Amino acid sequence: MPTYANNSEVISGEEELIALLAPLTEGHPGAFGLRDDCALLTPPPGADLVLKTDPIAEGVHFLPEEAPEDIAWKALAVNVSDLAAKGATPLGYLMALSFPAPPTRTWTEGFVHGLRNAQQRFGCHLMGGDTDRRPGPLTVSITLIGSVPKGRAVLRTTARAGDLLFVSGAIGDAALGLALAKEPALAAAWGLSQPEAEFLISRYRHPEPRLALGPALLQHAAAAMDISDGLVKDFGRMLQASGMGGRLRAGDVPLSAAARKVVAREPERLEQLITGGDDYEVLAAVPASRAAEFRATAGSVAICVTEVGRLAPDAGLLVEGPDGQPMRFDRTGWEHF
Amino acid sequence: MPTYANNSEVISGEEELIALLAPLTEGHPGAFGLRDDCALLTPPPGADLVLKTDPIAEGVHFLPEEAPEDIAWKALAVNVSDLAAKGATPLGYLMALSFPAPPTRTWTEGFVHGLRNAQQRFGCHLMGGDTDRRPGPLTVSITLIGSVPKGRAVLRTTARAGDLLFVSGAIGDAALGLALAKEPALAAAWGLSQPEAEFLISRYRHPEPRLALGPALLQHAAAAMDISDGLVKDFGRMLQASGMGGRLRAGDVPLSAAARKVVAREPERLEQLITGGDDYEVLAAVPASRAAEFRATAGSVAICVTEVGRLAPDAGLLVEGPDGQPMRFDRTGWEHF
Repeated sequence: MPTYANNSEVISGEEELIALLAPLTEGHPGAFGLRDDCALLTPPPGADLVLKTDPIAEGVHFLPEEAPEDIAWKALAVNVSDLAAKGATPLGYLMALSFPAPPTRTWTEGFVHGLRNAQQRFGCHLMGGDTDRRPGPLTVSITLIGSVPKGRAVLRTTARAGDLLFVSGAIGDAALGLALAKEPALAAAWGLSQPEAEFLISRYRHPEPRLALGPALLQHAAAAMDISDGLVKDFGRMLQASGMGGRLRAGDVPLSAAARKVVAREPERLEQLITGGDDYEVLAAVPASRAAEFRATAGSVAICVTEVGRLAPDAGLLVEGPDGQPMRFDRTGWEHF
Repeated sequence: MPTYANNSEVISGEEELIALLAPLTEGHPGAFGLRDDCALLTPPPGADLVLKTDPIAEGVHFLPEEAPEDIAWKALAVNVSDLAAKGATPLGYLMALSFPAPPTRTWTEGFVHGLRNAQQRFGCHLMGGDTDRRPGPLTVSITLIGSVPKGRAVLRTTARAGDLLFVSGAIGDAALGLALAKEPALAAAWGLSQPEAEFLISRYRHPEPRLALGPALLQHAAAAMDISDGLVKDFGRMLQASGMGGRLRAGDVPLSAAARKVVAREPERLEQLITGGDDYEVLAAVPASRAAEFRATAGSVAICVTEVGRLAPDAGLLVEGPDGQPMRFDRTGWEHF
């Protein structure tokens, strides 16, 4: 049973929960302060809507001891990350909450606080939702709606042979952060300072979707998606969706200073970094002729993008290790089943 | 563990599940056959979008032995019911599936079959979603998007003093159906024929949202909502959202022939019928001057609407029993917590 239930200060019921959540709708009149049973959204003119639902559950997508602020942030961020990779701008979201036991007021206030921070960062509002008590883990199911100029969404299916493969930021921090959160002693084994260990854990707990990369993607990318289930697995999905093959150079995958320290000590960890989940970085296929401009536009919003591979007409994905030899994997990423 | 897991013919993983679900997207090009990670929707011009998410979970919203066809139907129908009461037309939906164990191929095919039937009836398509394995009950979380002429959605918050209160169809069948599904011997105790018992159970398992009532609501209703948590509770919500009071005449609440038979034998069951959930009928506040036209427009699409009460300026909800005396309730409807 999660810690939020070990407290007598439990909310009195659905009405109180809704009252605590309602301020999150301020700025979206079509939410009716959660007093209606549906939400209204007037779509921006000349836009396509981009839609995503990606629920997170305790014990699966976040740890049981996680702070409510972080759970809330992550629940919204994982969906924003998908939209970011399409070049879309978030508008609003619906949220279905399911609790195994009524939460405390303190837990709920922390959760609302985390959502408010995330909303402000991502520029969107709560529009409506549902709350339920049911057995099983605490689950936060967000459906996010964003907009993109009509016909301009950057798809997963449209990568072409010859495109260069880019990733944003750094890969693998979250996989290490999750390992550290579960087993803090690893920090010493890996020779990490406390700030380094905290940095990696925060990359797991507090993903920062690459919304600012939108203009660069819209202008220059042939295809894009976010990296959430592991770089190798997600690149494989882009290739399959686009009917292409490709090559990934593991030695070129950008790592943070902390992650480089871990790999320097345990080189075999590289596999874990490129097959771990929760990166929430962007994977983009960019025509070679646009690569310089893509880099420059990304750089203008202080996002580093790194070329890590290339698309090819032949089927299949080859991952080349730092030694130039093909890498083989027991698993290429997070398995949903 | 649900029966669908007691079978060796289990799907091989997420890829197979997605392949089985993908045909449900036919007719919605923005679903990309589930090969992309987001869905696109080009909003119809001049429309507001109406949004709803209402997840259903095994053991909470449906019984563990339920057929996959019925689970699928209900998962979509409960959301369509909300939109129907707003006068909206469904466009498409996102669906997040969470399984405690991988389902069998047969179960999944039945589920897809049920969704296909529901889609055809309700005129919408699967646009995207997510699948996960996690502990806890099988959960189907649908977020439905529909459209309504701009500025015309029928809200819950806009009922006015003097409006007449109408309900569509008949109330309480599903509450009796659920009781019968759990305890088949009740049919004999209530003097029901087998077809009568089956009718009541099908009203629980296979709700038919009142989509056809849309034009009557858009033209004549001041406020409306669907009845899903019990007539008394949901009427109370409309009153609270509208800042009104009102009176409900329990003796005027329309009952099916089978439900009338039960109430004739056990008059105290009436309370269960008007506080049970899962009706998926429409509750509408209609100005007295429009009542005749509302009835006629509803009648033109073969939906019977019955006047059961009236809105008043004073706060509070009075439920008048068939004997003219105020009724008191231990619970007014389904409690989410």
